[in-house]
Amino acid sequence: MGDEVNGSEIFKEFKEYSVVEFFKKNRQMLGFAGKVRSLTTIVHEYTTNSLDACEEAGILPEIAVKVEDLPDGHTKVTIQDNGPGIPPSHLGKAMGMMLAGTKFHRYMQQRGQQGIGGAGCTLFSQITTGKPTRMRSGLGDGKVYECDMKIDVKSNQPLISNQVEYLGNFRGLRIEAEFADVNYDKSEHGVYEYLKRTAMANPHAQITLIEPTGEKHVFQRASDRIPEKPVEIQPHPLGITTGDLVDIAHRTDSRKLSSFLCNTFSRMSSAKADELAKLVPTVNFDKNPKDLKWSEAEAIVNAIKTLKWIAPPTDALRPIGPDQIEKALRNILSPEFVSVSERKPKVFRGGVPFMVEAAIAYGGNAGRTNSEGERSGDITRYANRVPLMFDGGSCAITEAVKNIDWKRYDIREFDKEPVTVFANFVSVHVPYTGTGKQAITTEEEIVDEIRYAIMKVARDMQVYLRGKIREMDKETKKKIIMRYVKELSMDLSDLAGDSTPQEIEKKLVEMVETKYERIEGSAEEAEKVEEAKEEVGEGEEDEKEEE
Amino acid sequence: MGDEVNGSEIFKEFKEYSVVEFFKKNRQMLGFAGKVRSLTTIVHEYTTNSLDACEEAGILPEIAVKVEDLPDGHTKVTIQDNGPGIPPSHLGKAMGMMLAGTKFHRYMQQRGQQGIGGAGCTLFSQITTGKPTRMRSGLGDGKVYECDMKIDVKSNQPLISNQVEYLGNFRGLRIEAEFADVNYDKSEHGVYEYLKRTAMANPHAQITLIEPTGEKHVFQRASDRIPEKPVEIQPHPLGITTGDLVDIAHRTDSRKLSSFLCNTFSRMSSAKADELAKLVPTVNFDKNPKDLKWSEAEAIVNAIKTLKWIAPPTDALRPIGPDQIEKALRNILSPEFVSVSERKPKVFRGGVPFMVEAAIAYGGNAGRTNSEGERSGDITRYANRVPLMFDGGSCAITEAVKNIDWKRYDIREFDKEPVTVFANFVSVHVPYTGTGKQAITTEEEIVDEIRYAIMKVARDMQVYLRGKIREMDKETKKKIIMRYVKELSMDLSDLAGDSTPQEIEKKLVEMVETKYERIEGSAEEAEKVEEAKEEVGEGEEDEKEEE
Repeated sequence: MGDEVNGSEIFKEFKEYSVVEFFKKNRQMLGFAGKVRSLTTIVHEYTTNSLDACEEAGILPEIAVKVEDLPDGHTKVTIQDNGPGIPPSHLGKAMGMMLAGTKFHRYMQQRGQQGIGGAGCTLFSQITTGKPTRMRSGLGDGKVYECDMKIDVKSNQPLISNQVEYLGNFRGLRIEAEFADVNYDKSEHGVYEYLKRTAMANPHAQITLIEPTGEKHVFQRASDRIPEKPVEIQPHPLGITTGDLVDIAHRTDSRKLSSFLCNTFSRMSSAKADELAKLVPTVNFDKNPKDLKWSEAEAIVNAIKTLKWIAPPTDALRPIGPDQIEKALRNILSPEFVSVSERKPKVFRGGVPFMVEAAIAYGGNAGRTNSEGERSGDITRYANRVPLMFDGGSCAITEAVKNIDWKRYDIREFDKEPVTVFANFVSVHVPYTGTGKQAITTEEEIVDEIRYAIMKVARDMQVYLRGKIREMDKETKKKIIMRYVKELSMDLSDLAGDSTPQEIEKKLVEMVETKYERIEGSAEEAEKVEEAKEEVGEGEEDEKEEE
Repeated sequence: MGDEVNGSEIFKEFKEYSVVEFFKKNRQMLGFAGKVRSLTTIVHEYTTNSLDACEEAGILPEIAVKVEDLPDGHTKVTIQDNGPGIPPSHLGKAMGMMLAGTKFHRYMQQRGQQGIGGAGCTLFSQITTGKPTRMRSGLGDGKVYECDMKIDVKSNQPLISNQVEYLGNFRGLRIEAEFADVNYDKSEHGVYEYLKRTAMANPHAQITLIEPTGEKHVFQRASDRIPEKPVEIQPHPLGITTGDLVDIAHRTDSRKLSSFLCNTFSRMSSAKADELAKLVPTVNFDKNPKDLKWSEAEAIVNAIKTLKWIAPPTDALRPIGPDQIEKALRNILSPEFVSVSERKPKVFRGGVPFMVEAAIAYGGNAGRTNSEGERSGDITRYANRVPLMFDGGSCAITEAVKNIDWKRYDIREFDKEPVTVFANFVSVHVPYTGTGKQAITTEEEIVDEIRYAIMKVARDMQVYLRGKIREMDKETKKKIIMRYVKELSMDLSDLAGDSTPQEIEKKLVEMVETKYERIEGSAEEAEKVEEAKEEVGEGEEDEKEEE
C-alpha cells in the first residue's frame, strides 16, 4: 500500500470553472461538432432567435442569411432580421453571456428556451478565429446601436468594444461573425436544407439565403397571417413536483395555502382546492404557504394525482395547423397523397402541456433517396416549428415511427417506400436530450402520443393505398369491359339497322367512363351498370320499333 | 403595425440564472429521464467517481451498492468505497457544487471529466425528495467526517448541515441518498446490468450489489493488478486550436516563444520548433509568448498541420488490454469464438490522443434476444471503461458498426446473428454528445478508427466461420465414410478369416478419427486418407497371405 496517494494530495488539484469554460471544452454539446453541422448550428441559433423575437413582437419575419468563404479560410456569416431589436442595455448579456435571457424562466411556447445559443455562437467565433462578433441593433426609434462583442471565458461576462450609436431607420438585429472549422455544403444536414425545412414550418416567414457561390435562394412567405403571440401560462397541477411546489409556495405573495393554490395553478378552482383539502386532512389549507413543509407538499402532490383534472388550457400552444402543413408538404414534396392529424393537447410528466401534429405524404418526392440510390422512408422532425436535423437516433419522433407496425398499414418496410412522416412537437417546454437541442427525450407518454398521431395519418394513407389498389382493380375491369365495347356496338348496330356502330360505341364508352369516374366501386355501382345496359337494350328496341 | 411590441418591453423579462437552475429544469441532460435510467445514472455517477479516485490513489477498488425501496415510495441508494476519501474542506464543493472538481482542467484519462455528476445526484435527490444527501468521508488518518448536503440552487453553492467529526478507521467515501421518480428493475438498462458491464471492463474492481429484494450479487475481482495510475500529458501540437495556443501563450512563464513551444507541447523538439520558425518567417520566435497575436498563432497552427509529427505518447492511455477483455467476454458470454484487437493510439481533432479496443464474440450467449425472442447482434459500448447504456443511436460506436458491410464478413444481417461487438474508446478527453455522457460524438476520424478496429476482429471471426463451414463439410464427409466403415470391416473380416470384424472396425474408426481431428482439411489431408485406405488394403492382403 506504499504507493497509495492520500486524498488531500489529490484535492490540491481541485478547481472551479465557469459555464463558458465548460462549453468551450465540450463544444459538441452546443452542436459545434463537424464542419457542416457547426455551420448549421450557427444559422439555427440565429434564426430561431429572430423568429421568436418577431413572434413575440407581432412582426411578420423577414430574415436574410449570407454565408461567405473568406480568402484566409474563414467563413463569414451575416444574418439580419426585421424583428424588434435588442435594447443596447441588454445586448451584451443576451449575446455575450451564457445562462441569461428572456425565455428560460417563462412558461410559454418558444423555439429557444435555454439562454445559451446566441452566446454560444459568439464563443465559437472567438475560439476559432479570435475575432469579436459585430452586432447592430435598432428598436425602430430612430437610433441604431453597433458594437463588437466577445465573452470573458473565466467570468461569463460580455466584453464589448467599438460601440457606436447613430441616427437611422434600421429596426431589427444584424449579426456579422467569422468562424473557422465550418464548411458550407448542400447535404441534407446543411444550411440550405435547414432553412428550407424552417420555411416549411413557418410559412409566415420570408427567408433569403445567399450561398458562398453568390447564388440567392428566396423561401417565399406563403401566408400573411402573423401567428398568435405566445402567452405565458400557469402550470397545471399534474405537472408540479414536490420541489417546485415548495419553491413556489415559499416565494408567493398569497397569505393562505388555499388561495395560493388557486392563484398559481391552472384548472385549480376553489372547489378543487376544497376537494384536495379533504384528501390531506393533516395539512391546514389556511396556513401561510411560506410555512409549507416538504412532507406536506409531497402529500398534496400525491393527492393531486388521485383527482381528475381538466386538461391544461390549449390556447398557449401554437401548432402550425393542418392547412399550413398540408400546403407545405404538397408544395415541397408534390406527393400523390397527404394526410395531416392534429392531436388534442396532452400533458407529460404529469402536467407540462404539449400537442403533436403529424402528417404523412406518399408518392411523388416523398421519402428520401438512400445511399444505394433507392427510395426510402423519411422522417421530418420538428419541435415548436424548429427542424431537428441531427441525433435522430435518440429522438422520441424516430422512436415512435420505429414502434409502429407498418405492415398493418400496408407498408411492407418503412425503409423501402416513398413515404415522408412529418411530426411537430409543440410545447411550452421541449424536453431535449441535450444542449444541442436536436432530439426529444424518449419518455413513454411523449413517444406514445406521437405514435398515435402518426397512426392516425397512417390509417388514412392505408385507405388511400387500398383505394388505389381497388382503383387499379377497377381499371382492369374497365379495360376488360372496354375491350367488348367495340364488339358490342357492332352487334347492336347490326340489330338496330340504321344506327352507325360509331355512335353506339361512343354512347357505350361515355356510360362506362361515367361509371368509373366515381371513386366508390360498390355493388350499387354495379347495379347501375346493369341499368345502363338495360337502357341500351331499350334503345335498341325503340329503334327497332321505328324500323 | 399597431399590435407590435417594442424591444424594450420584451427585455423587461431578461434574467440571469445559475447552472443549477439550468440543470434543474433540464434534468434529462444529466441522464435523469425515465425512472429506470435515472437510477442507473445515480449509480453510474457514484461508481465512476469511486473507480477514478481509487485509480488515482493506487487502491484496488471495493465498491458496495445498496438499493432499498422505502415505505413512502422513495428509493434509498447507499454506496461505499474504499477509496482515498475527500478532505472535509473540499467535500462540499465536490458533491454540492456544479462545475468544480479535480478532473475538468487536467489532460489525463479519467472516467469522469465534467465536474457535474456528483453534484447532479445531490440536486436530483433534493428536488425529488427535499432531503439532503448524507456523506461520510475518511482519509485513512484516523478521523471520520460526516455531514448532510444540499445545493443552493440560485448560487450553485453547497449547503452543509449536521457536521460531525469523530475518530475511526474508515477510509473511503460513503454516500446515502433518497430519491423519488426512480425505479429498480433488471432490464438491460438497469443498475444490475450497468454494474455487470462495469465489472467486465474493470476486472480489478470488486463490486457488490444488494437489490431491493435483499438479494446480493458479488461481481468478483478477477485481477489483482492495480491499473497504472493515470498521468497528465502535454497536449500534442496537432490537437491545438489557435484559441488554445493564444490562451496558453498568454499564461506561460516561458520568456521566448520557441522555448514556450518546446516546454508546452509533446513531440515539440527544438529542431521541430526551428522547422516551424522557417515556415512562418513573419513570426519572431524569440518574442515573448505573452505578446503572441491571434494572426501569428493562427499562422503557427496552420504551419503545424503541414509538418509530420510523431504520434502523441501512448503511456497516458490506459486500455483494458486484450487479455482482460478476452477473459471478461469468455466469462460473461461463453462464446464459441472471441477475437480482440487493440489499435495503435491515434489523434482526433488533430491532436487529442485516443485509442480503440475492439472485440467480437460469436455464438454461445453472444448477441442479445430481441423483442421477437430472436437472437440479434449486440453492441457493447464503453468509454474509458465506463459502460454506455443509453443514446446508442447517436454514438460513434454504433455508427461504426452500422458502416461495416457485414456481408463481407459472412454475417448476412448483423441484427440476426449471435454476435456481440465490444468497443472501448480510450482517451484523455472523451467527446460526449451530451452532459449525460452516454454517446461519443460521431466525428469522422473517431468513427473510422472504431470501424477499423472492429473490421480487424470481424476478419478473424470470418476466418473462424469459414473454418467452421469447412469443418462442417469435413464432418459431413466423415459421416459418409463412417457409414461404410461397418460394412467394409465386415467384408475385410470375411476376407481375413481369423480377424473379428469388431477389431477391424475399431482400427478403421481410429484411422478416420485421427485424420479428422486435424483442423486443416487440405488436399494433403485428402491424400493421406487415400494412403490410409491403401494401408487398409495392404493389411487385407497381408491377412490374405496369412490365410
